[in-house]
Amino acid sequence: MSWDEMSESVCQIARALSVAGDRWTLLIMREVGMGMRRFEEIQAQTGMSSNLLAIRLKKMEEEGMLERKLYSASPPRYEYHATPKGKELDAVLLAFRAWGMRWGGFAPDTEPAVAIVHKESGATIEAPWQMPTSDHPFTFDDIDASVSKAFQKEREARSASFKNGKQRLKKSKNSP
Amino acid sequence: MSWDEMSESVCQIARALSVAGDRWTLLIMREVGMGMRRFEEIQAQTGMSSNLLAIRLKKMEEEGMLERKLYSASPPRYEYHATPKGKELDAVLLAFRAWGMRWGGFAPDTEPAVAIVHKESGATIEAPWQMPTSDHPFTFDDIDASVSKAFQKEREARSASFKNGKQRLKKSKNSP
Repeated sequence: MSWDEMSESVCQIARALSVAGDRWTLLIMREVGMGMRRFEEIQAQTGMSSNLLAIRLKKMEEEGMLERKLYSASPPRYEYHATPKGKELDAVLLAFRAWGMRWGGFAPDTEPAVAIVHKESGATIEAPWQMPTSDHPFTFDDIDASVSKAFQKEREARSASFKNGKQRLKKSKNSP
Repeated sequence: MSWDEMSESVCQIARALSVAGDRWTLLIMREVGMGMRRFEEIQAQTGMSSNLLAIRLKKMEEEGMLERKLYSASPPRYEYHATPKGKELDAVLLAFRAWGMRWGGFAPDTEPAVAIVHKESGATIEAPWQMPTSDHPFTFDDIDASVSKAFQKEREARSASFKNGKQRLKKSKNSP
């Protein structure tokens, strides 16, 4: 069976996986959810090649998970925003987070990379099954998130290393 | 960044995705969760090549998501069972299911492929955010599942087509 066939299955899981069952897609949604909207920001934090990222973003736009908004006219530059369809993958990310917390090989009592507090109840949430029952699909709009110092440091290191890489590339192109 | 680096991230989502952020892995877990324990059963329902499936099952066993149990000594044959680590991916599958139900292009009021009733409360569940708050990780042990006629039919068709394929292969090998 190909994934084209899976996308025709009567199974809801198979159809969802055929579109979004992919680590890059979900990592991009994590970044967009964290407010990274520009191509190079997403590239720096995911470490994707620009070619792979461009193809994936285009696919996600076609699938209606992301939409592009012009933020600079000349040259044209776009920001990526999650649509409701994209935002609702937050429930999948929350489930992966809980699993990573329990089975990701972290030392016990490791501070989570992002602390999550449910806005309405004020409860700290580690996993989907700890969420109060709700009548609307979960998204990160329902929670307050604070990034840990360790994760902030990791993200800054990635950003710096990405910028250095670009600088080096530029220099080597300009050298005779 | 490679996925080897991602598996070292302080981010719980990144670590989880580095191990289980993959459609085949999740589809195999769906099958094992539905009671398909043998190589050929899983192959028939996922449509994976035997080579790809063998590699993936080995990886999942190494990661501690599945364990093999001998069910026939001669020739040696194994069944695959989910470990607690594997079973807890059910929360991820439930989240994908909800997303597929809402965004998978189904006609409104389409009967889900698998109807889910929460054992303890008796409530029909469509999505993780409808689950009552719980103090233990969600797994499909918490629910009663009934497969729809349409999904049963799709599964039987896959099984039959897989057996026919094998039969044809055998005949062509035996022909002079």
